[in-house]
Amino acid sequence: MSLGIVDGHCELALPASWRQNAAMNREALRRVVETTDTKAGRRFDLTFQFLIVIAVVSFSVQTLPDLPEGLRHLLGWVEVITVVIFTAEYLLRLWVAESRIRYAFSFFGVIDLLAVLPFYLASGIDLRGVRAFRLLRLFRLFKLLRYSRAISRFRVALGLVREELILFAALALLVLYASALGIYYFESRAQPDEFGSLFHSLWWAVTTLTTVGYGDVYPVTAGGRVFTFLVLMVGLGIVAVPTGLVASALSEARRLEQERSHSY
Amino acid sequence: MSLGIVDGHCELALPASWRQNAAMNREALRRVVETTDTKAGRRFDLTFQFLIVIAVVSFSVQTLPDLPEGLRHLLGWVEVITVVIFTAEYLLRLWVAESRIRYAFSFFGVIDLLAVLPFYLASGIDLRGVRAFRLLRLFRLFKLLRYSRAISRFRVALGLVREELILFAALALLVLYASALGIYYFESRAQPDEFGSLFHSLWWAVTTLTTVGYGDVYPVTAGGRVFTFLVLMVGLGIVAVPTGLVASALSEARRLEQERSHSY
Amino acid sequence: MSLGIVDGHCELALPASWRQNAAMNREALRRVVETTDTKAGRRFDLTFQFLIVIAVVSFSVQTLPDLPEGLRHLLGWVEVITVVIFTAEYLLRLWVAESRIRYAFSFFGVIDLLAVLPFYLASGIDLRGVRAFRLLRLFRLFKLLRYSRAISRFRVALGLVREELILFAALALLVLYASALGIYYFESRAQPDEFGSLFHSLWWAVTTLTTVGYGDVYPVTAGGRVFTFLVLMVGLGIVAVPTGLVASALSEARRLEQERSHSY
Amino acid sequence: MSLGIVDGHCELALPASWRQNAAMNREALRRVVETTDTKAGRRFDLTFQFLIVIAVVSFSVQTLPDLPEGLRHLLGWVEVITVVIFTAEYLLRLWVAESRIRYAFSFFGVIDLLAVLPFYLASGIDLRGVRAFRLLRLFRLFKLLRYSRAISRFRVALGLVREELILFAALALLVLYASALGIYYFESRAQPDEFGSLFHSLWWAVTTLTTVGYGDVYPVTAGGRVFTFLVLMVGLGIVAVPTGLVASALSEARRLEQERSHSY
Repeated sequence: MSLGIVDGHCELALPASWRQNAAMNREALRRVVETTDTKAGRRFDLTFQFLIVIAVVSFSVQTLPDLPEGLRHLLGWVEVITVVIFTAEYLLRLWVAESRIRYAFSFFGVIDLLAVLPFYLASGIDLRGVRAFRLLRLFRLFKLLRYSRAISRFRVALGLVREELILFAALALLVLYASALGIYYFESRAQPDEFGSLFHSLWWAVTTLTTVGYGDVYPVTAGGRVFTFLVLMVGLGIVAVPTGLVASALSEARRLEQERSHSY
Repeated sequence: MSLGIVDGHCELALPASWRQNAAMNREALRRVVETTDTKAGRRFDLTFQFLIVIAVVSFSVQTLPDLPEGLRHLLGWVEVITVVIFTAEYLLRLWVAESRIRYAFSFFGVIDLLAVLPFYLASGIDLRGVRAFRLLRLFRLFKLLRYSRAISRFRVALGLVREELILFAALALLVLYASALGIYYFESRAQPDEFGSLFHSLWWAVTTLTTVGYGDVYPVTAGGRVFTFLVLMVGLGIVAVPTGLVASALSEARRLEQERSHSY
Repeated sequence: MSLGIVDGHCELALPASWRQNAAMNREALRRVVETTDTKAGRRFDLTFQFLIVIAVVSFSVQTLPDLPEGLRHLLGWVEVITVVIFTAEYLLRLWVAESRIRYAFSFFGVIDLLAVLPFYLASGIDLRGVRAFRLLRLFRLFKLLRYSRAISRFRVALGLVREELILFAALALLVLYASALGIYYFESRAQPDEFGSLFHSLWWAVTTLTTVGYGDVYPVTAGGRVFTFLVLMVGLGIVAVPTGLVASALSEARRLEQERSHSY
Repeated sequence: MSLGIVDGHCELALPASWRQNAAMNREALRRVVETTDTKAGRRFDLTFQFLIVIAVVSFSVQTLPDLPEGLRHLLGWVEVITVVIFTAEYLLRLWVAESRIRYAFSFFGVIDLLAVLPFYLASGIDLRGVRAFRLLRLFRLFKLLRYSRAISRFRVALGLVREELILFAALALLVLYASALGIYYFESRAQPDEFGSLFHSLWWAVTTLTTVGYGDVYPVTAGGRVFTFLVLMVGLGIVAVPTGLVASALSEARRLEQERSHSY
């Protein structure tokens, strides 16, 4: 097995046989770490999915106010242990990767790093910014996506309707802005607090056209209500159509997949 | 007619002719109880569907506060009578079933038992837990599903999009968690009561991304509102796409059914 | 032209030529009243559609409180005049109909009668019930549907998904009831006013599963919120799927129509 | 190059060579201004899209109350400069257009004019109406649409379902009116403020059937709630179906486009 495929990163001066051995171990480990063909590979994956869920649950419980001291202590330990394990995983993935640079700068390589880095930075600094850094831990969740196979069909579907999605995203932004402009004109005098500026009105437009309708801002003038009706008649579709587009594209992606499998 | 198909459960020492007679009666009763081919079978089904509706309505009215004493008494009697009838139905089904064990542990066998058991347990115990047991009566409703035929096409459709539904359920959970994490970061300082922990924020995420929007929790900071907008643009589709998927899968299931019927 | 096609209703003893003349006039009038082939027929239809809109607008404005006396008087006259015209139209349609009995008991025959009858009954009685009778005037609106042609494709589409719609309507009712039962269990103790009975809980279930979410009733307990999340994950689809079904059935109805027109 | 294609508008008495030169310059400029084939044309387009975004953002920020004096001054200057540039663009487009009259009365010709006109009118009048005129600036946003190509497929899709969209718009209006009529009957006595007239009830119908549900008006009587349930069961679909229709029509438009490209 030639080492030509390994990009030279930190090739130390070691005896050739030693290096060849390590290369073969790396090859074997890579199959476990990067693929799910083998039983060991599947176990490795399941273990880390389980660890991610534990880390997420632990982090969520930590946000609860008035936690008993013992539980807070326990969760702190869970955090330390999971971060250490995730760090080991990152280093392992870096070591076994065919191209280390490509992994380090790949989507999941960056996420794997961002999932552990804040912990060390936070310990070092221990200041205001800690909280913002912790938010990055959110990326850990995306690791779950790594293991899903149905996602490829979703990507095909997104590719099929990419242009329409961009168009409707642009149209939705236009409609949102136009709605905000209109309601600002009708309501800003009647409700100077709720519709004080175009940005306040945009908040109304977002909650209304997505049909969330919290009820914190709503038109009270006759003009504003008629305008809301008109906006909803047109805007509802523009905000909601992309959903239908993705759904029908997924059906098409499934059909394309079936046609391909039938033609073989 | 051989008795070989009957699984030996409680075969008493009876004269052969007597047993053969009973077996033939069982055979005839089974057609009435389990199928809807015969007129008697359809009548049997309709009667029990009607009884389920009566039991459900009676139970619902019982929850109303300030019921007149007479009505409360009447509803109590309706409850006793329907439970007795449902118990008789359960025993009948158990008796006529080709394999008694298989029925007893089948989905509807368990439901039929759970629908009557709490009544007897409650009478025996009459304590705190009674209320929780009564909730199981809800399963009676699922009996209605037993009699629907269009449901088979629905099952085909669900099978077609099973993988996508799982993917989107997972994505929806991820998006819900990520939204809760984000809004917690933006709003927890401004509204420590409403967004006091990640679990409070999850409640906001659920009511927002499903577009229910009760209005009990909503962002008030500029950052929280911009974040809500971004989350809705992406998350709305992920929560709503499965609906479109099931709809188009149902169309496909109908087409598959037609093709099959045309090819005969 | 033989009179055989006219069902004998009130055939008076008139000279044959006179009666033949009337029959021919009826024939000509029928084309104007019942079809839109001729210019006069289209004008007749447009005139009555316009009158329906006037009657509806006039009725709506009448509900406004604090109307000036002059306007109230004017609207009263508009009401009298439109009712008289609609009565004349009803009698005309009755006279020209090929089969008078069939028209009188047809869907639109009944609606045409119900649209004018309350006015005369109300003038006669002038009591409490007047208001309820006026509600029937709503049926006038359905006259607009009479003139739409695209509606036939909609009927084909509804026929295609009839079984699924019934199934999902049944499922939706089950899910609504089950949701109400569950939330009643979780919330009735915490909010005895809002979730006082299963019927109060059903109101919550309706506003939640349709994602309207007024915000007048919502769960406050942790159990109730988790239950709401679970119910929404399953129930949202069941309530929303029929919409997608009808949409895809309409596409199919359009395709069927095109195929038929191509095959000719 | 003949001048025959130029519609005679203000052909001055100039030497033939001079006029021919100008015509060739116009020809070259037209390619830059009206098309995106050339590098200069794409740059021209991008510059103006960027300017529209700047003008929109500047206008939005201007609506914020309590702006510092310096920023207000700066935004005023941004407004003057963008309007001057847009005016120059309008005149340029008018000059290079093959048919000036056709451009002046085309959709985008009118919009380009309406986007700058209010500024000059407002400076001249400086009175109450200024605010209303400013609203017209909204049309500037539509310029963005000019540059989208995916919009042609959207137009095909709208053409495919035009009849259904009109039918459902009519049905939606009918359902809205019928809902308002019904809830007015049930709730006007219990809530004379919220459901004071049919127009108040229409506002409820709009917020309910679009599932926005602000929570400012909702039924409180048992009859009104049952009616709301019935209305939602039927009306939800009628208001939401058009969205699904447009989505499936877009899929069809994409398929038609692919078939056409394959057949070549």
